Amino acid sequence: MLTVPLSQELIGNYNSFQPNTTTARDGIPFGEYLLQRILTAGTKSIFGVPGDFNLSLLEYLYTPSLISQGLRWIGTCNELNAAYAADGYSRYSNKMSCLITTYGVGELSAMNGVAGAFAEDVKVLHIVGVTRSVDSRSDDYHTRNIHHLVPKLKDSNFIGPNHRVYSEMVRDKLACSVAYLDNIETACDEVDKVIFDIYKYSKPGYIFVPADFSDMLVNPSNLVSNPVITLENAIPEVPSLELEEVTQLLLQCIYDSKTPAIIGDVLTDRFGCAPELNKLIKMTSMWNFSTVMGKSVIDESNPKYMGLYNGNEGICSVTERFLQCDLVLHFGINVNEINNGHYTYKYNENAKIVELHPEYVRFFDFKINEEKLFKGVHFVPILKRLLEKLEPTNLNFNYPTNVARFSQEEICLPQESSSELKVTQTHLQNKIPSYFNDGDVVVCETGSFQFALRDFIFPSQLKYISQGFFLSIGMALPASMGVGIAMQDFPKSHLIANGKEHSYQPRLILFEGDGAAQMTVQELTTMLRNKIPIEIILLNNNGYTIERAIKGPTRSYNDIMPWKWTKLFEAFGDFDNKYTMNTLVETRSELDRILEDLKYKKRDNLIELLEVKLDVMDFPKQLQSMVDAAAFKRSKK
Amino acid sequence: MLTVPLSQELIGNYNSFQPNTTTARDGIPFGEYLLQRILTAGTKSIFGVPGDFNLSLLEYLYTPSLISQGLRWIGTCNELNAAYAADGYSRYSNKMSCLITTYGVGELSAMNGVAGAFAEDVKVLHIVGVTRSVDSRSDDYHTRNIHHLVPKLKDSNFIGPNHRVYSEMVRDKLACSVAYLDNIETACDEVDKVIFDIYKYSKPGYIFVPADFSDMLVNPSNLVSNPVITLENAIPEVPSLELEEVTQLLLQCIYDSKTPAIIGDVLTDRFGCAPELNKLIKMTSMWNFSTVMGKSVIDESNPKYMGLYNGNEGICSVTERFLQCDLVLHFGINVNEINNGHYTYKYNENAKIVELHPEYVRFFDFKINEEKLFKGVHFVPILKRLLEKLEPTNLNFNYPTNVARFSQEEICLPQESSSELKVTQTHLQNKIPSYFNDGDVVVCETGSFQFALRDFIFPSQLKYISQGFFLSIGMALPASMGVGIAMQDFPKSHLIANGKEHSYQPRLILFEGDGAAQMTVQELTTMLRNKIPIEIILLNNNGYTIERAIKGPTRSYNDIMPWKWTKLFEAFGDFDNKYTMNTLVETRSELDRILEDLKYKKRDNLIELLEVKLDVMDFPKQLQSMVDAAAFKRSKK
Repeated sequence: MLTVPLSQELIGNYNSFQPNTTTARDGIPFGEYLLQRILTAGTKSIFGVPGDFNLSLLEYLYTPSLISQGLRWIGTCNELNAAYAADGYSRYSNKMSCLITTYGVGELSAMNGVAGAFAEDVKVLHIVGVTRSVDSRSDDYHTRNIHHLVPKLKDSNFIGPNHRVYSEMVRDKLACSVAYLDNIETACDEVDKVIFDIYKYSKPGYIFVPADFSDMLVNPSNLVSNPVITLENAIPEVPSLELEEVTQLLLQCIYDSKTPAIIGDVLTDRFGCAPELNKLIKMTSMWNFSTVMGKSVIDESNPKYMGLYNGNEGICSVTERFLQCDLVLHFGINVNEINNGHYTYKYNENAKIVELHPEYVRFFDFKINEEKLFKGVHFVPILKRLLEKLEPTNLNFNYPTNVARFSQEEICLPQESSSELKVTQTHLQNKIPSYFNDGDVVVCETGSFQFALRDFIFPSQLKYISQGFFLSIGMALPASMGVGIAMQDFPKSHLIANGKEHSYQPRLILFEGDGAAQMTVQELTTMLRNKIPIEIILLNNNGYTIERAIKGPTRSYNDIMPWKWTKLFEAFGDFDNKYTMNTLVETRSELDRILEDLKYKKRDNLIELLEVKLDVMDFPKQLQSMVDAAAFKRSKK
Repeated sequence: MLTVPLSQELIGNYNSFQPNTTTARDGIPFGEYLLQRILTAGTKSIFGVPGDFNLSLLEYLYTPSLISQGLRWIGTCNELNAAYAADGYSRYSNKMSCLITTYGVGELSAMNGVAGAFAEDVKVLHIVGVTRSVDSRSDDYHTRNIHHLVPKLKDSNFIGPNHRVYSEMVRDKLACSVAYLDNIETACDEVDKVIFDIYKYSKPGYIFVPADFSDMLVNPSNLVSNPVITLENAIPEVPSLELEEVTQLLLQCIYDSKTPAIIGDVLTDRFGCAPELNKLIKMTSMWNFSTVMGKSVIDESNPKYMGLYNGNEGICSVTERFLQCDLVLHFGINVNEINNGHYTYKYNENAKIVELHPEYVRFFDFKINEEKLFKGVHFVPILKRLLEKLEPTNLNFNYPTNVARFSQEEICLPQESSSELKVTQTHLQNKIPSYFNDGDVVVCETGSFQFALRDFIFPSQLKYISQGFFLSIGMALPASMGVGIAMQDFPKSHLIANGKEHSYQPRLILFEGDGAAQMTVQELTTMLRNKIPIEIILLNNNGYTIERAIKGPTRSYNDIMPWKWTKLFEAFGDFDNKYTMNTLVETRSELDRILEDLKYKKRDNLIELLEVKLDVMDFPKQLQSMVDAAAFKRSKK
């Protein structure tokens, strides 16, 4: 299955299996195989909750040879949070992440987290411990009718339940690959196939593991023949003729262009070629634009960064620049209503556009209304070939000289009185950008502040993580915990990937809303338990302000119970306030001072929680423009 | 569809729609119809979380005519908790309950709660706000590709997502009835059908409501022609010939029997005939037994209560009594591994058994190995007819005189030193039974203490609520909140149903585990927000003790982070400790004193939280017998 030969260098970055004479002869337990395979697929920490059907697998977490490779269990408070954490882990590491749950009660609870990973192309392996294979194969009602399973609607006292009922719910819907194991002889191959697919599609996969499989012996030869499974070897090669043809067409477009643009979109990140894209930007000095979901793919410190383009829902001056471009190279394109400003993307009427995607490369020339579509061509080999072939001396760009790089001043924030003391969204938008350092990792919750952050110019190498399309409120808090775990497992890997490691220890920063935090708040305890350094900016606007912006600004359904946020960590395990600093921030001056101290690491608490009070209806104007745009689209019908 | 004529008395117990001349002419908004229908189906409080696709429906919560009928919104912190709360609401009221979530992100999060209701026959209506009908019908990719939806695995930039993807996941799996509305002309009928099915099957149903439907006008005539939908009118009549035949057979069995037994199982409660069953017990003085899932169906204060029968996993002396019975009338039978002691039910070798179920009545005579099966015969009309026809003078019982009523002494708890100061499971099992009063409502979390509670003899009219088969840890905390809301909406309804209303104000008591509580802890705030009086006994044994009993007693995967439980309510909104009393209990004497004070209402706090410290591996011996039984069953293979 894995046809791409692996360089030793690649293998060197991964854990690998060291067979000894005993294992070669007798085999190893399947539970060990599965966990070893997860390690060799790039994951060290596994999230989840124990349950009777997965305990036999969890026992293999304590295998010394696996522990010595860094394998660890990160118990979460519940399964939805485990899924969110795994999502965050993968978004940070760009490796497959893993969660383990139990049949029914566990896996169903995690489902929304997995669906979000599916919608946003995140590599999550969900392992579910299920009934023993002998039970699920049995025709005997008594053996089949087991707890955690839903019975049949009719004749449930006579007909045993369908043991694959839950796997059938996710197959072909929320997963790119599903294996419900029932044959130990093929189990290892099936595991490898799911993991390979997870990398191939950059989507979640499921493995359903019968409780009796973990202790069965299997032949570990796959671990020798395919020592690692990586994103790199899951990306299909492009046949050389097509590779050259597409690259040549691209080169010609670039050489012919006077004012080309690069859009760095989300799949560039997911398929691991953001460094190459940034290299292309550096090599060519092309104008470049971010997208909502692709935010931080492009290193926005580059001198040709022109802002985030989002059609009518972006900043007008960014659109103006974009419309001057006669060529648009859209890398890792992902088309949906949020990422494309409710389909208000406009182009220069004479522009050529090139869409580069894992499944296709598409050229379109507006002037002559002509399309060239290369289906089955993956954009990553094309981008790499382009970098090899591009001759900077052939570039012929001629950008208008009166256009400057994007500046945050263009957001045109409302003027505020200089005597204003309280914190406002406008004040946050003025202050937060300078609070970030090069290489920081920023997670933002679905909510109103998300609409402000996307127009910030991020410092170099900042990694930004947010659910831009699926928009499941509550995801960011556990996801940031998963990011923190990944930062422990792969320190500075986001910098190393870009060849820019430096001595600075990147900070992890979470922007969280109060309504969202109440959904998944218990995972704060897991941050503490695992000693994750994090700065949490909790924006307390007293309810679901993002929903208020859409409907029911004063309705009780948008209210939540007021909490004393600064007391949470004490209840959640920091009994003596040794590890956390919890501050209620009510004035600008206080906020500014603390942000400055945090930026320069003048405070040494493990966890900093800032509860920032905001007015109920204070939200960024960018959110209003999205709401207006959505409403306009609707009223058209 | 509703063919059973309704008595005015029945209608009088429900809310009903009062049409006026305007509504009769122009119709009413569908959103109002739906909420009015929910009221006329017996639900007053709706649980859920707002989201952009359900906001147009939520607006109708503020319709004055609905508010005046008692309709209210109970916002929960997240959707899983809303589902659990709705489950608890229905278990208490035995009416349909309702939750409203939003497309994808909301409904998927709630799924495990709905699955539990399905597995345990609870009447939950799940309403999901979905995309506008014009969008989901559109062939235009731009209109179809909307946030909260999962895209297609392939060609997702060209092919719009399936708008029914989530409804297809639950249809025929987790719901007895599903309507994805797409025609406003038939929408009211479809709503009524789902609600009717929920009562008919006593299982969850789903209605997917497009965001543009709530404001459309519909004809409210269904609300006039079928003013209410009730459990009573959803139970199918039994044709009179069969009714008489089955009743006659039953009577003959009873009259022929010397030592008959009644088993009161869970479906007796779900189909609303526990009062009739208790009447039968009173009328006949038959020996009677509880089951794990049917606990509290039978009023255990009756003089012939013989204990909880659960095959090899019950108390030996109860089994001994059971084996003396020559007739077993098993009302509301639900067969599964938990409810039948891993299928170790044994009967007297000469016994006749009669299984009474919503789909069938089955007679089986062990002596002659003969079965008579009446399919399609619902047990409720049979039970009612039996009560009418039974002539106590024809009874011929001859129970052994040396058998006493079940006594809790028979549990044979381990002896403990009288100098023991700390609280143990044994001490709890000795003390808790006398802590309950007649008519109290007790909710117990899935976990080790559940295995102790089931052998208690409950006082009269105590209502016991616990997930006995699906066993989703974390369910009980939000479920108890839902129970508390139902107790506000229908005060003492569990007493009224049994014709035993008294002046005592029943208490709501929750037994919760620490590991379980961390899963869904935020819903404590909703108890506070809605001023729910509750006594919470938090058994803190430092992790997942029920899993430790099965595997990994000292494994880290069964550990959780220690919390300061007594600080939670302060963080969650009781800033000045005005409404809650939070007590860490470390000694027996302290526990005994507080339990006594609570029993006699000598404390007047709204919410009492007792954190009771237990040893990590201290669990009831009944749990061990279940684990052993399950292990034995497994090792046989």
